Amino acid sequence: MASVRIREAKEGDCGNILRLIRELAEYEKLSDQVKITEEALRADGFGENPFYHCLVAEILPAPGQPQGPCVVGYGLYYFIYSTWTGRNVYLEDIYVKPEYRGQGIGSKIIRKVAEVALDKGCSQFRLAVLDWNKRAMDLYKALGAQDLTEAEGWHSFRFEREAMRELAGK
Amino acid sequence: MASVRIREAKEGDCGNILRLIRELAEYEKLSDQVKITEEALRADGFGENPFYHCLVAEILPAPGQPQGPCVVGYGLYYFIYSTWTGRNVYLEDIYVKPEYRGQGIGSKIIRKVAEVALDKGCSQFRLAVLDWNKRAMDLYKALGAQDLTEAEGWHSFRFEREAMRELAGK
Repeated sequence: MASVRIREAKEGDCGNILRLIRELAEYEKLSDQVKITEEALRADGFGENPFYHCLVAEILPAPGQPQGPCVVGYGLYYFIYSTWTGRNVYLEDIYVKPEYRGQGIGSKIIRKVAEVALDKGCSQFRLAVLDWNKRAMDLYKALGAQDLTEAEGWHSFRFEREAMRELAGK
Repeated sequence: MASVRIREAKEGDCGNILRLIRELAEYEKLSDQVKITEEALRADGFGENPFYHCLVAEILPAPGQPQGPCVVGYGLYYFIYSTWTGRNVYLEDIYVKPEYRGQGIGSKIIRKVAEVALDKGCSQFRLAVLDWNKRAMDLYKALGAQDLTEAEGWHSFRFEREAMRELAGK
């Protein structure tokens, strides 16, 4: 039987990661917002001071099968800073292709992020989820996360580039 | 009349910043969650690869007045990464002491963050706000931000250290 491996992404994975980013945005019904390119992913994640880190989940073929490993999911994270608790980690995206769900691959990615975060001295691990994505919400809660929007009333706000230009007078 | 200056924080501001961090947490009714120390703020913000950046707002005394400038607010931010739009900025905290509100100091901090973000090639500027803090929500909206929790249904989730340990099996 094929087995799953979670590993750090390499620069050569960026094409696969971009395909999965687009799939995730379609699943979130927000695919018109994807502007990123493979070149940007390569430059921003694999230089001297990377802007993000990425894990990929790949299916390893059974011995004797001709095809190579196949990337079926990813988790993209970066380090953030809390003025209450210091260094923390933020999981920006987590995605597993629909036909590979229900096998615990998402949980494996989350466990690996938690491990990395603890190794780096982080005391919190944050992420965001859309309220209609009950399957994801239930998974995160089952794994021990708290819904801060529900519990404390946190709302996410965003300025887009046009608003930023007006603010900065540029 | 005294005037306001927004400038980048220096390491020597960390004591003042910590006092303001504690005031903000009290205002948010969550002060039991503040674990950070002045030493951590110094180490994490002023080393070679800082985990955060900070602006302070200070009141400059009128000419001839004996006291020095007085720090009355701060904005603490860092760079994050969107898989849709690339490099972005996140304003973790913004705070102005109650007796200095209503003079546009908060807006000045936000404008300065937008300026820094544009200079660094960011296309979005995110922040989070508690739903009962109507004054802050109204200000961010008036300045052009969108409430993504309201508009798209985003919820913030967080794993604390104990949940992370269980996830990582540590």
